[in-house]
Amino acid sequence: MNFNEKTIDVKEIFTGNIIKVELQTVELCNKKKAQREIVRHRGGVAVLPITADNEIIMVRQFRKPFDEELLEVPAGKIEKDEKPEVCAVRELQEETGFIADKISFINVMYPSPGYTDEKIYIYKAEGLREGELFLDEDEFLNVEKYSFMHAVEMVKAGIIKDAKTIIAIMLLACENS
Amino acid sequence: MNFNEKTIDVKEIFTGNIIKVELQTVELCNKKKAQREIVRHRGGVAVLPITADNEIIMVRQFRKPFDEELLEVPAGKIEKDEKPEVCAVRELQEETGFIADKISFINVMYPSPGYTDEKIYIYKAEGLREGELFLDEDEFLNVEKYSFMHAVEMVKAGIIKDAKTIIAIMLLACENS
Repeated sequence: MNFNEKTIDVKEIFTGNIIKVELQTVELCNKKKAQREIVRHRGGVAVLPITADNEIIMVRQFRKPFDEELLEVPAGKIEKDEKPEVCAVRELQEETGFIADKISFINVMYPSPGYTDEKIYIYKAEGLREGELFLDEDEFLNVEKYSFMHAVEMVKAGIIKDAKTIIAIMLLACENS
Repeated sequence: MNFNEKTIDVKEIFTGNIIKVELQTVELCNKKKAQREIVRHRGGVAVLPITADNEIIMVRQFRKPFDEELLEVPAGKIEKDEKPEVCAVRELQEETGFIADKISFINVMYPSPGYTDEKIYIYKAEGLREGELFLDEDEFLNVEKYSFMHAVEMVKAGIIKDAKTIIAIMLLACENS
């Protein structure tokens, strides 16, 4: 059965630097109409950096929506016309100072497909060496290293709550098991 | 170091049925000001239903932000004053028709903490028996069963892209390994 929803009308609500918001009127498969609230986002990357000693590098940063500091893998928004892999290399260095000899694609995930079209491309970074940090002007974070096993335990214990970080760690754990 | 961001001003942009959008002016730890685009969401639940034969039940539904049908675990938004566990029982029956003898909490995850305060509580449902379906008026979906191993393969192959579904399956795979 085909459940496609046909767009009847699009009302632009907000255009920011990170997100755009639109309200769509759609025609359902039963011909009735419904409203869809949609957040448009250019998409992002997440990078799981693993050292030769099987440690992973994460960043702790304050996240205003939760008023809480969260432990996450380095990540960021894809710039206009930027390829996800190029973004991964850039964000890794900007946020942690590390440069990777090898960046490999793990998977893509949709954080919350009910209302946002954000896609996050997840990469693994290996062969790390230290370069310079280039944080954005309004970006403050701590770079922290954890053994891979410790990171897996922090996921299971609910200490790591960020979806992209959980997925990167669990997919790698699965690859290694 | 304390990276807290103090709210200086909140501008309400949009109030919908699913999300609210606000634009905050914050004071950073270096005393400079910055803008934060924030999507408010009441939070949701995701339920991984597992049969006695080690099959999992998922739903395939059209997601307007992607104009794509996605395979996801049953899930839904928490109603006002509803406890996540009650929401899990309700959404499982509404979307799949199944009633569970046992619902257990697996974990909580933040889909995209850079701009949304949505939290998703993930549960496992066991001891399933068939009841009645109660879909929302504008909700259309197919209920599908997969062996647990097949679901893990679909995650690894990038066929399952929804974050809550990947996390539910991978955390259970990890529990079982």
